[in-house]
Amino acid sequence: MDKKIYLSESEMPAHWYNIIADMPNKPLPPLHPGTKQPVGPEDLAPLFPMELIKQEVSTERYHEIPDQVREIYKLWRPTPLVRATALEKALDTPAKIYFKYEGTSPSGSHKPNTAVAQAYYNKQEGVRKITTETGAGQWGTALSFACQQFGIECDVYMVRISYDQKPYRKMIMKTFGANIFASPSRNTNAGRAILEADPHSNGSLGIAISEAIEMAAQHDDTKYSLGSVLNHVLMHQTIIGQECIKQLEMTGDFPDVIVAPLGGGSNFAGISFPFLRYNFAEGKKIRCVAVEPASCPKLTRGVFKYDFGDTAGYTPLLPMYTLGHNFMPDAIHAGGLRYHGASVLCSQLLKDGLIEAVAAQQLECFEAGLLFSKTEGILPAPEATHAIYQVIEEARRCKREGKSETILFNLCGHGFFDLQAYEDYFAGKLMNHHMSDAQLHTNLAELEALQPA
Amino acid sequence: MDKKIYLSESEMPAHWYNIIADMPNKPLPPLHPGTKQPVGPEDLAPLFPMELIKQEVSTERYHEIPDQVREIYKLWRPTPLVRATALEKALDTPAKIYFKYEGTSPSGSHKPNTAVAQAYYNKQEGVRKITTETGAGQWGTALSFACQQFGIECDVYMVRISYDQKPYRKMIMKTFGANIFASPSRNTNAGRAILEADPHSNGSLGIAISEAIEMAAQHDDTKYSLGSVLNHVLMHQTIIGQECIKQLEMTGDFPDVIVAPLGGGSNFAGISFPFLRYNFAEGKKIRCVAVEPASCPKLTRGVFKYDFGDTAGYTPLLPMYTLGHNFMPDAIHAGGLRYHGASVLCSQLLKDGLIEAVAAQQLECFEAGLLFSKTEGILPAPEATHAIYQVIEEARRCKREGKSETILFNLCGHGFFDLQAYEDYFAGKLMNHHMSDAQLHTNLAELEALQPA
Repeated sequence: MDKKIYLSESEMPAHWYNIIADMPNKPLPPLHPGTKQPVGPEDLAPLFPMELIKQEVSTERYHEIPDQVREIYKLWRPTPLVRATALEKALDTPAKIYFKYEGTSPSGSHKPNTAVAQAYYNKQEGVRKITTETGAGQWGTALSFACQQFGIECDVYMVRISYDQKPYRKMIMKTFGANIFASPSRNTNAGRAILEADPHSNGSLGIAISEAIEMAAQHDDTKYSLGSVLNHVLMHQTIIGQECIKQLEMTGDFPDVIVAPLGGGSNFAGISFPFLRYNFAEGKKIRCVAVEPASCPKLTRGVFKYDFGDTAGYTPLLPMYTLGHNFMPDAIHAGGLRYHGASVLCSQLLKDGLIEAVAAQQLECFEAGLLFSKTEGILPAPEATHAIYQVIEEARRCKREGKSETILFNLCGHGFFDLQAYEDYFAGKLMNHHMSDAQLHTNLAELEALQPA
Repeated sequence: MDKKIYLSESEMPAHWYNIIADMPNKPLPPLHPGTKQPVGPEDLAPLFPMELIKQEVSTERYHEIPDQVREIYKLWRPTPLVRATALEKALDTPAKIYFKYEGTSPSGSHKPNTAVAQAYYNKQEGVRKITTETGAGQWGTALSFACQQFGIECDVYMVRISYDQKPYRKMIMKTFGANIFASPSRNTNAGRAILEADPHSNGSLGIAISEAIEMAAQHDDTKYSLGSVLNHVLMHQTIIGQECIKQLEMTGDFPDVIVAPLGGGSNFAGISFPFLRYNFAEGKKIRCVAVEPASCPKLTRGVFKYDFGDTAGYTPLLPMYTLGHNFMPDAIHAGGLRYHGASVLCSQLLKDGLIEAVAAQQLECFEAGLLFSKTEGILPAPEATHAIYQVIEEARRCKREGKSETILFNLCGHGFFDLQAYEDYFAGKLMNHHMSDAQLHTNLAELEALQPA
């Protein structure tokens, strides 16, 4: 059997999988923060094209991937599934380790899977410009690429500290033709208010979301796009797992454990949701493990409550595991995981005991990432190192227990734009982070007023 | 037919191709600069392991790739051959354009094809440390990776200006465990002499080669490794073209034109030499076009003479197209193409009219690179944009002439570590460069004393 398992382009899945169709407990509805009543399509129409709003609330099990989206996917999809034989050997484990490598995309991560779909539906409905936020830059890069494919203008609000510290991310977005603004910016009321209070604000993902939403809401030909959290975003990512199913069939193996990092949830959903269907429909018992950073532990230390998706409170209230929308995570290098909440779908699944969650410390994650690079020859993005950390833990457990389990994980992106993170690690500048109970208590107390009666 | 054409790992070629076996005029021998007599294996033994010295002078047509090298190749090989359908459409050309994508390797370029082979043979002969030079950083990255795979220490002398301007390259070499020294350094006589004359020297590839050679020559357990120019290096790269032959067979197409950038020659040789065998053995007439930067035009404006491979004059004299070993190219961003000479094999083929050469300006190359990124979704390395520039020229010619030719080129690497180059391009900081006839005349006059009687 080859180490790298490819599908032909004609074998690329024709549908995204919508897990809502199979969930035992359906997700609770998003609420209007004023009325505490469920929001309707009309509430979301200023921000999103109607087709994406329909997908957000759909209960259909499969959605057909439009031809034009499939054609663009073919620039890099299907992506390889790889047997991590060199890592297995280094760990001397009886476990079989497979990884799905999403780093071959134009932006170097899994993010274009939904960016291309979203740009397509916006184009269909005559949208001229899309606004978005980006933290570490992976999402902004993906949307810049997708918008360029469809001739849509793209404005990216990039968290100020990343704008300053990650110049390569800014540059690659420019090569894809996007306009990049450091957030908080003077373009928006939300940005100006923050700058008035603190002219040197580092920004945050929550603030950047507020700015991008405000710009979209104020212009008829402009919509907003989010790179994770929402149901339709997670659904677009399921092409990852759908491909894995076909690829693993070729090997004769079937996963016992699936591991992915969790920031908003789209990476984790992308690889695990199509496999969870085996648990729901066929009684299989695949363990799906979400890995979050110990510095932003919404799944392992947060609460399941209604909360805003952004800092300024522009979004509907979402029922999710959260650390509170005012939570400001420490400046760790896995920027894509520094979000206060988890998607509604992942949250409901965790609440129902259908998936697992663990928290990992960044020093251990970088160490795991370097072992992976040394063995498999791919330097992983800091976000992806969280999955690798947990995979190594599982592989060591398999060795202790003498079990030959099959472990599958999502190598969601390469670390070529994140080398400063490794440099800081080598220089001893990074530390592990813990959120104090006192900080958690303060953040969560603010949530009480947001809950419905 | 799929856009991306893969080979299975079992279809990976088992041999490298040695073009010397088929060349109508064999290359002239390298000469000892003192005696002007051909150098023997004993002259090279302090620098290279014996197996590589044997390969350097071999006339065998095929050399078997060792199993251990093949196993490491499988981390990323066989690499995809891609039909550039989106670029074809944008150019509205009747030509079929294919590219071999070597950017999926651990270092993001074709360089590990020889780095892994060289590290293997050094390991076989008990070498503990390998020294090398790097300009833009692609070669240093590849050798760092390869040495790590075999547990060999790696010292990289990196041209000072790149060391300062390309921090991401320095960082990725560190993730592969290498030691990086800015060149000129105080480690060597060659470096100290330069620094004494100019404490702020930017360095050059020629100086860095001198430093790496000096360190290897002075230590028994240390050898030296070169990333291009030498016969064995070019041979290791022929796996690129060998794979292409199999992949193109699957499409039913056969190349009319093959295009690759030429710095030292290994990239160009890698893709074109296996196809040139069709010209030699079967009378085919494939045009093989080497593209060099107009700022470093050894093929189009240099002379075919004996010259040193480095600045300090530590190497044997090589019969090649050269601008003179004291030629200091302008600071263009395609650092991998800033070398004063061309490999002996490429030089002999050009002299005999068996290959073609053109020079390209960097602004046109960056423009071509951005069109490629916009259409095919891969941001190319500055070196690779030179090939793309010429491919677009050929495709436009095909349109004018109404010809449906098949064009194949080597996309030798991605530009993710070279984003500063694109940033400078956008900022209008780059210019085109021309070498003056006066400068050329001065450089070439110095060569007369080096020629054999």
